[in-house]
Order: sequence, then structure tokens, then C-alpha cells
Amino acid sequence: MLRDLVLRNRSYRRFRETEPVNLETLRDLVDLARCAASGANRQPLKYVLSADRERNARIFPHLAWAGYLADWPGPAEGERPAAYIVILGDTNIRREFGCDHGIAAQTILLGAAEQGFGGCMIGSIQREGLRRALAIPPEFEILLVIALGVPAETVVLEGLGPDGSIRYWRDAGGVHHVPKRSLGEIVLG
Amino acid sequence: MLRDLVLRNRSYRRFRETEPVNLETLRDLVDLARCAASGANRQPLKYVLSADRERNARIFPHLAWAGYLADWPGPAEGERPAAYIVILGDTNIRREFGCDHGIAAQTILLGAAEQGFGGCMIGSIQREGLRRALAIPPEFEILLVIALGVPAETVVLEGLGPDGSIRYWRDAGGVHHVPKRSLGEIVLG
Repeated sequence: MLRDLVLRNRSYRRFRETEPVNLETLRDLVDLARCAASGANRQPLKYVLSADRERNARIFPHLAWAGYLADWPGPAEGERPAAYIVILGDTNIRREFGCDHGIAAQTILLGAAEQGFGGCMIGSIQREGLRRALAIPPEFEILLVIALGVPAETVVLEGLGPDGSIRYWRDAGGVHHVPKRSLGEIVLG
Repeated sequence: MLRDLVLRNRSYRRFRETEPVNLETLRDLVDLARCAASGANRQPLKYVLSADRERNARIFPHLAWAGYLADWPGPAEGERPAAYIVILGDTNIRREFGCDHGIAAQTILLGAAEQGFGGCMIGSIQREGLRRALAIPPEFEILLVIALGVPAETVVLEGLGPDGSIRYWRDAGGVHHVPKRSLGEIVLG
């Protein structure tokens, strides 16, 4: 059931790095996104795939991880993503990409969750560094990076606390807690 | 399997208007979106629901349908959506909404498809008219309208033709054809 998949599809930032996500899997996930909606059906998104150690190592330094975990510099060696999908916007097709990359990224991550993988959409990217690292031509805007792998952490959803903060946090046992607004708060009227 | 759901989840613009989507279903769909990712977990989206004839009639005139079907003014009475979910961005929380509404809308539509419904993300909206019609306060930005119902049309995906056009079209039998770029075109390198 989709609800189970949506709930299983948490934002994971630590992985079993040695368990691979192969290129064919990445292509299948992009193919899911390819079949999703796109504003005015323009389909301006392009994808760069990475599923090997050397290429992953070129991508990793340009990503910022978990802004609210001030003491955590991001996943250590051994717990880094096994793969990445970089989502680009092709400015030859459109100058604005609306929310197409959200539609695509969610489709990709739900597909990954179904196969026992997990990941995280990363928007905090040192874009010029990543562009150089992957030789991405200037006509492609870097929109999102999806980190992927076999998750090596537990993530739980919970309600907002009394302070109303939406900042996720990690407890002493390493469990990642994500406060979510209630349905009553987000449905108006 | 998610792939089946993604393929079933086409953009439908004609519905069996008398077959309802009830408010509880809309709330369940928004609850799915509530559990999805949000940039920096800020969760700035709010939702307005409509599942009754009178309210639907207030929304409908402010939506533009199927830009490429120049001769089609949109669904006629009897084939209009049975429900709507209006996605708003709460500017008290954020000024920019990234691709959060894409993540949410795709989650909602996949959930709808699972239940035998279908719909369409509509971004071409007469925003000030819709704001007045629903008395949406100025601090909420209107991001997307999702039209929902039991689909009353057949939509097929196909490759781009020799002219490379991505314009969808409707054949003499009323079947809606949607050209999609190939995987080879969208995966770089």
C-alpha cells in the first residue's frame, strides 16, 4: 500500500556504503520519474547518475548534510551514499522548472524505498564545485541531488513538541527524530 | 508495484462528475503528503479541500485546462472534477517553497490513483480570482490546484514523434496522447 511506502520513505543520511545501488537500478528509478507529470509536459529535467566509488567521492564534498545537526559534519566514510542521482534543469527547454524536480525526486525515492533502498533529497549544494566535479555544461541548472543507498539509521516521525520547532534531531541512541505538523494545522477551514 | 501506480497516474482532465471523492479521502491524501519530505523540514504547505458541488463550482472558472488543446475549453458539465485540493504556501513560514508542492502533489496523486481516482496538477490558475472565490488570506501563496475524480478518459504515453514535439493531443476517438522523452534523452553521459 502506498501509505506504507510513503512512511518507509524517510530522509536517510547514513548508509551501508558497501552495499551497492547499481546503475541499472538508477536508470529504472529515473524511468519512473520520466513517466510522471511535468509542467506543460515540457520535461526539462536531465539526470546524471553515479554508482561507483570514484564518482561518488567527487560528488560528496559538494553536499551539505542535515543543517539542524550542528555537531554532525555528515556521513563518515563507510556510511556514505552508495549512489547519487543529480537532477538538472535543461535551460534549452525551459528557464523555470516549477516543481518538476519535486515530482521527479519523490517518484524516484518512493521507487527506491520499494526496493529496500533509501535516500535523501539534498538542495544545499555547492553548485559550482559540483558542476566542475562532474563537468556539467553551463546550460544545465543543478536543481537537486538525491543520495541513495541501503539505510543504516532509524528515522521516526513525531508531532511537533510544545515549542513548535520543526528542527529534526538525533537522540543519544542515534535515532533521527523528525517533527511533523499535524493534519489539523495544515488543512485550512 | 509502484511502477504500475506511476503509469496509472496519468493527468486526467475529464471525470465522472457525479462519482464523489469525499472529504475524508481528501484528508487521507493530504495526510500522505504531510508525511513526505519538505525542504529543511519547514513544512510550509497548507491545503484547502473541496468536495461539494457548490464549492467546486466556485473553483472551476479560475483554472485553465490543457493549454495544447486549443479547441477544447476544458471539461463540460458532467465531466468536471468531483473534488479539488488547493496547495498553498504559507509565507509566515517561508518565502520560497522550493519543490515542496511537487513532492506533495505527486504523493497525493499516487495515493488517489491507488484508490481508483485520478487527477491533474493545474498550475495555470487565475490566482486573484481563486483567492477571492475561496477567501484565501493574502499570506498564503497559491501554488497548485489538484483536480480529482474518477477519470472518464483514456490517456496513453508514447515516444516523441519525428518532429520532437512534446505537445499532448487528443485523437478522433477522444484518447489523450502524451509524448514523453526517452530515457536515453534524459540521462546524460
